[in-house]
Formats: sequence, C-alpha cells, structure tokens
Amino acid sequence: MRSAIWIVGDLSTMKHLKTLYDLTDSEIQELLALSIELKGEVRQGRRPQLFHQRMVTLVFEKPSLRTRVSFEAAAAQLGGSSVFLSSADAGLNGRESLQDVARVLSSYSDVIVLRTFSQQLIEDFAEASACPVVNGLSDERHPCQSLSDIMTIREALPDKPAAHVTYIGDGNNVACSLAVLTARLGMPLTVCSPVGYELPSAFVQDLQTRVPGARLTQTSDPREAVKTADVVYTDVWASMGQEQESSQRSDIFRPYQVNAELMRQAPQDCRFLHCLPAHRGEEVTEEVVEGPMSLVFEQAANRLHVARGLLAWLTRQAD
Amino acid sequence: MRSAIWIVGDLSTMKHLKTLYDLTDSEIQELLALSIELKGEVRQGRRPQLFHQRMVTLVFEKPSLRTRVSFEAAAAQLGGSSVFLSSADAGLNGRESLQDVARVLSSYSDVIVLRTFSQQLIEDFAEASACPVVNGLSDERHPCQSLSDIMTIREALPDKPAAHVTYIGDGNNVACSLAVLTARLGMPLTVCSPVGYELPSAFVQDLQTRVPGARLTQTSDPREAVKTADVVYTDVWASMGQEQESSQRSDIFRPYQVNAELMRQAPQDCRFLHCLPAHRGEEVTEEVVEGPMSLVFEQAANRLHVARGLLAWLTRQAD
Amino acid sequence: MRSAIWIVGDLSTMKHLKTLYDLTDSEIQELLALSIELKGEVRQGRRPQLFHQRMVTLVFEKPSLRTRVSFEAAAAQLGGSSVFLSSADAGLNGRESLQDVARVLSSYSDVIVLRTFSQQLIEDFAEASACPVVNGLSDERHPCQSLSDIMTIREALPDKPAAHVTYIGDGNNVACSLAVLTARLGMPLTVCSPVGYELPSAFVQDLQTRVPGARLTQTSDPREAVKTADVVYTDVWASMGQEQESSQRSDIFRPYQVNAELMRQAPQDCRFLHCLPAHRGEEVTEEVVEGPMSLVFEQAANRLHVARGLLAWLTRQAD
Repeated sequence: MRSAIWIVGDLSTMKHLKTLYDLTDSEIQELLALSIELKGEVRQGRRPQLFHQRMVTLVFEKPSLRTRVSFEAAAAQLGGSSVFLSSADAGLNGRESLQDVARVLSSYSDVIVLRTFSQQLIEDFAEASACPVVNGLSDERHPCQSLSDIMTIREALPDKPAAHVTYIGDGNNVACSLAVLTARLGMPLTVCSPVGYELPSAFVQDLQTRVPGARLTQTSDPREAVKTADVVYTDVWASMGQEQESSQRSDIFRPYQVNAELMRQAPQDCRFLHCLPAHRGEEVTEEVVEGPMSLVFEQAANRLHVARGLLAWLTRQAD
Repeated sequence: MRSAIWIVGDLSTMKHLKTLYDLTDSEIQELLALSIELKGEVRQGRRPQLFHQRMVTLVFEKPSLRTRVSFEAAAAQLGGSSVFLSSADAGLNGRESLQDVARVLSSYSDVIVLRTFSQQLIEDFAEASACPVVNGLSDERHPCQSLSDIMTIREALPDKPAAHVTYIGDGNNVACSLAVLTARLGMPLTVCSPVGYELPSAFVQDLQTRVPGARLTQTSDPREAVKTADVVYTDVWASMGQEQESSQRSDIFRPYQVNAELMRQAPQDCRFLHCLPAHRGEEVTEEVVEGPMSLVFEQAANRLHVARGLLAWLTRQAD
Repeated sequence: MRSAIWIVGDLSTMKHLKTLYDLTDSEIQELLALSIELKGEVRQGRRPQLFHQRMVTLVFEKPSLRTRVSFEAAAAQLGGSSVFLSSADAGLNGRESLQDVARVLSSYSDVIVLRTFSQQLIEDFAEASACPVVNGLSDERHPCQSLSDIMTIREALPDKPAAHVTYIGDGNNVACSLAVLTARLGMPLTVCSPVGYELPSAFVQDLQTRVPGARLTQTSDPREAVKTADVVYTDVWASMGQEQESSQRSDIFRPYQVNAELMRQAPQDCRFLHCLPAHRGEEVTEEVVEGPMSLVFEQAANRLHVARGLLAWLTRQAD
C-alpha cells in the first residue's frame, strides 16, 4: 500500500522534530493524516514496510514507558528495528563530546529519538546529526504527545476541526506543545493554571509572534475554563524531576482537580484527555479516567500510530 | 510453509498462558507439535515469518538468561522484534497502576512475557491486557520451561508417550508446572523432595481436582524414586531470592544430589534433565550433566523452539 | 544482489574472530571487499537481506557506543535483530559457568559479539560456542576496529595498497590489532610510543614468527615517526579501566600529542585517524580532529560497514 498521502511532497532536505515549529502547516496535516491512515491499515491487519531494515536509536536521560515502547513498536511494525540507550550508554556523560556522539550515532541510525532534560541538548544534537532527530520529551516540549492528542481529538470529533480544548494544570512541556499545535491548526485553547504555574510568558510571546492568529486564553478559574470545552485535558501536578515540590504543589493544585463535579460544568458530551501516568485522587479522579468521556487509553495507543507516522514520514525520501 | 497444524483450530478468543490450565488438552498437543515442527524447519534453514513485523515485550522483575534470550531470538527468527523492560522501566514500581501499564503496553505489543515474583501480578496484568500475556516464570509456575521439558522428552523417547519422569528436589515453580503438564498428558510423575520441601499441598489438591487422572507420586526417598524412571530431573536447591537460605538448604538437600551413584539405581537408559543454571557439586555432579544420559543443553535449546511455537500460535488469529 | 565476492569461497567450518589470526589472508581480503561493497549498496539505497531473521547477541563487560550500536545497526540493515546483554544479564557474574552460558546462548544466537576485559574469556567462550564468536574488544585486541581502519585507508588512498601507517601512543589493544592487520596486508607500520608503553614484546615476537615479512618499526620519536607517514593514527592515553593512571600518563604522553605542528612534519597529504572517543587537548588537538586531513568520522562510520560485512560473511554458509 502506498497512498497518495505519502508519495506526494517528498522532502528535499532532512527534517528534524525538535519542536513543532520545525514542521510547516501542510507537513503537520500530512503527518496527522498519515498516522491516522497507518492506524487504519494495522487495524485491518496490514503493516506496510515503511521503515524496512531501518533502525531508530533512542537516547533517553529519563525513564519512559510510552515514548520508548511506542517508538520501538512503531519501528517493529514497519519492518525495522530499534536500539535503546541511556545517555550514559551513549557517552553523553562526559566521556565524549555531544557533537561527536551525534555524528557517530547518526551515521549508524536512520532516526534518533532523544528524551532529555534540556531542550538545548536536542537542538545541539540535531545540529550535528546526519539523520533526523525527534524530540521524545524535553523539559520544554513534547511534540509527539501533542500530535497524538490532536489525532485522538480528530478521531473522536471528526466534525469539529476547531474543537475547543481546555488544558487544566501546570503550564509544562505538554501544555506548551499543545499550545503550539492547537494554534497552528486554528483550534482555540484555554490553559487554566494556578497563579505562578502558567505557560512561560516568553513562550507565549514567542507563540503569538510566530502564530499571529493563535486563539489562546489563559485563566486561573477551572469552572469558567471548562464551560465551552469540547475536550478537557490534564496532566500530573509534579513532573519527573519535581518530586521534591510534590507536597507544595498538591496544596496549590488541589482546586484544579478534574473530577465529576468539574466535568458537570462542561458541555455534556465533553471528552477527557490525560497524557498519563494518571495519579488518581490527585489531578484526576477514578470516575473521570474510567468514565465514558475518557479517551485516555485511545490517546496513549495513538502514541504508537504517531510514532509510525513519524518514522515513515521522516525517512521516506531515502526510498 | 504452512502446515495443517497451525491453520486448523484458529482461536476465536485471545489466549493467555498464565498457567498451563489456560490451555485445553488439544491446545497443549498443538503447541508441542508446532514447536517441534518449527525446530525441524529452522534446522533445514527455513524460518517462516510467523511473527512478522510483530513485537513481543518482555517485562522482567528478575534477571534471566534463557527466558529472555529465547523469546528475543524466537521473535527475530520469525521475522519480528522484541523489547526488554525491567519492571522499573515499565513503571511497575509504583509510578503507575498495574492496570494502566497493562492497558498501554498491550496496545503497543503483540505479545507480553512477564517474569515476576508474584503469580497474582501476572493474573492481574492479563486481566487488563489487550494482547496475549505469557508467564515467563513466577514464584509459583514456569509453564514455558515445562513445555520445553516435555518437548525434549518426546524427541528423545518418541515411543514412550507416557514416559515416567522423576523430579528430585524442591517442590518449586518448575516442579509445579511439570506436575500439571505431565498430569494433563497422562504421564506418571514422581516428585521426590526432603520433608518440608514437597509440592505445596494446596497445589496438589487443586491438581487432583482439575486433573482427576493425574498419576502423581510423592516420596522422600531418591533411590526408590528413580527405580523406574525414564527421565530424572533436578533443579537448584535455592532459587533466585532464596540465597539467604542457601547453606541451610545445602544440608537438607545433600542426600538428594543427582550423581552417578544415584543414576545407577535408575534403568540403564534413563535420561537426565535440568532446567539450568546447574550448580555442579551441589544438586548435580559434573559426570551427570556432561554424561551421555544428559539432555540438558538440548532442553535449554528447546526453550527457543517453544518460544517460537508460542509466539506463532498466540498471534496466528491476527493473520 | 549477490555479488561474486560473497558466493565464492563458502566456509566449510564455522569461523570465529577472536583475533585477526583466525582469518586467512584471502579471507581478510574478502571481508574488506564485502564491507566496501555493502557500503556502496546502502549508499544507493539497497539493503540486501544477508542476516535476515537472524540475531546477533552482544555480551559486554564494558560500556560501548561504537561497537554496540554498529553491530545492532548492522543486523537491522541486513534484515536481522540484536539483543544486548551486560555480562551480569548473561550470567557471567558467577551465576553460571562460562561454558554453560556459551552453549546456551549460542543455541539461541546466529552470531555472538563479546566485549570483555580478558582475551582468554573470548577464547574460552568461543571454544564452547555453537555459533561464530566475534571479539568486540578485549584488553589485548580490537580486530573490528582494525578492519575499519584499513577499510578507511583503502577508500582514501585507493592507489596505495601499501600505505605507511604511523601509530602514535600507547601500545594497546588497538595498536596490537593494527600491527597484525598491516603486517598481514604487507603495509609498513611505525609504532611510536613512550618508553615503557611499547607494544608488548611477547606480542611482537609472536607477530614476527607468524608473519615473517611484517614491516613493523618501533620508535619513541614522534617527529621522526611521521616523516614518511601516509596516515597518522592515535588513541586516548588512558583506556577504559586505566583512569587511575590518567594523570601520570598525561605527563608521559604529552610529547606524543598529535597537533598541527607534528602534522607539519608529515607529508603534506598525510591523513589522520583516531578510533574515538577523542580527548581534544590531550592526545590530539581540535584542529587536527576537525581538519581536512581527518578521516575520523568516516572511520567511525566504517565500523557499521565492517559489522555488516562480518555478520553477512560469518553466517553465509547457513544459507
């Protein structure tokens, strides 16, 4: 199977996905369409060999379930392979310079996925790399997650290309990438955070410059924020590395818990997203995660399909 | 190559292998026949793509050589891939609920193999999983080992479908699964253990209820136990996690060492099995492991062929 | 694609690569030619399935970037798979005997690559192995590196089959394997080391016995050593495991730094090699590593192509 979607628009130059700004509007559409199409294929038992005899190398500074396994499974389903390295395995612990690691590793790999604390490391690595580099999560961005989020919304709400998303919680990496992607796609986004935990103001200014039509609203009132939401989205209160702030954050974020009572303020057919892991009883309650409005496990499954889309799309010009 | 064996009897529902009770009698026969057939194929240079572009995910709480590598090699030889996760990698360390891990991981995987301390964890994981789950060893059961044991006996003694197996040693997970499988196949089994180290009595009662014709004998006299044995089988005295009991167990188990003198009490053509690792000079002597009666390295090699049989068989309905 | 190169000369017996002495002269030529041919293929987008549904198992006692990932990528590009085990994962920590691990692992694997402290471990492992065993680095030898080095020189200097190589630095495993390979190929080699850090004298005597025509010169004067060099090669002053000697070695090796001033003593078109990781400011300067004479990243990339050549060549008789 070779659909029109992925033989049109071949890349003339190598692409990275350091942030969603690396993609043009039409590339974002193409990637989402490809991911959805490949999901349909696999559901019908077809696994096209779009990463055949190719290898993705994962270099991770943090533990990961979804990002790691979704990319490894994506490579496998497309006929390819994967190798998983901790940053120490890769020599990013001072044994060797970042540039040297990037040059060597990219001469062995077809795609490299990095999961790092620092966004700058991803930028520097991509600069020296001879193959496409994908941001598998940094402290600032999580583009693969956002692509899966939007894919999930498109599948659930095919008639609402401009669905209104309300993100409740910390203005973290997940929120930033979601803000960029919704803006790029013309979708209104409300980000509702406690004071002091909003999206970084430099990030918002940059977004408004780059995407002048961005329909981004910020508020600290969750009941107000969900009123017209098609989708409510939340994330853990303390991300990996913030465990020491955990009890302080608990007090501050408690009024922002997504529970049945809050969901009743939203339109009746409002859906619920969470990028997982979910801490039931903290940012979300059991009844919401497991309730009929919840798309969270479909959203997690879509990480695989977006990873397949990305691996196929980033390497197609090599065919 | 597609033999009658594996196109007949397609599964209508997803199967797990938590314990051997998950398989019907005819499924056990089918799986053993498929494993033996696939071994013949690979020996003739044919590696049918029965797990093509599929991925098995291994989640292990304990180190493992045979279980891990046999499943990874099985996937590779059948055209598929594997990913190996420690339980911490998978988030089974409290970062996330077991049910959530099972749901997410099974949406990325074609088969999941678990090696855990607790049998209950495997049961709970399988309950939530969207793909087949295989018990790769728990404190109570080791079904993949038993299937390899029986495959080895069938190959060595093709004319004795009811070969008499004598297991000498601790009534552990290996012994329990061997007891279930021999009972299901109508093979007499003698389990010879020191007092206090027999098969758990609740396990034996349950076995006798589920398999009324089970021909299971227990004794504490090794010389008596091997008298009519076609196969003598032993295992280490202290399993992983029991190292602290090691010196106490040494004293208790010493009379149960399988050595040349004990093997002389058995029929002359009696064979020897051991699931490895072997501690020479403890539960078995060098002369027995390396002697002409020993099948232990063929038995270890058969772990691969059973793993191939399992991966092919558990996923065939997906084709 | 099946070129004349690799269908001629099928192996009648299984081969290991414990040291370069395991290969005949014509096998060395064949392996280099195959590696170069496969590199040309992949550059044109062709990835022949010469390790299809096969698996290489890596067992490493030391961390590794190049050796590990080059073999894993090589397997993937040839249609196969890989599994990476620490020596503890493999049970080489006393849990099981070396011979038992070798027998079991080789019954699951198509090729095994070992990276160990001790050369003897590789010899013992290969003795018990049922599949080819490759030395992926020991304290005494590094044959895969040398094959990549010579491949790089052949590509850069196609008209100089007897190019003069000058190795400056510690008479370590890299230097020993380079000495064997250049001798076998009739290439002159100068090894320039501080007094006390020369090639081991037993090694040199053995080399002169085995390869009577070896054109090996040893000196302690770097300016003299590079005078007629076609290629200058260096390595870190302290290898893995020698970190405690690091500051003492710094003082001793400082006059042996390969810098622009030293390179000016060499012929103008002299090339530079380094097996990486490079410690800029120690054994080599930035201007040399990054200068126009440097082939170090091509040399690192060639590790992949030699690994592909090796996997294809060692297993071809199985087809």
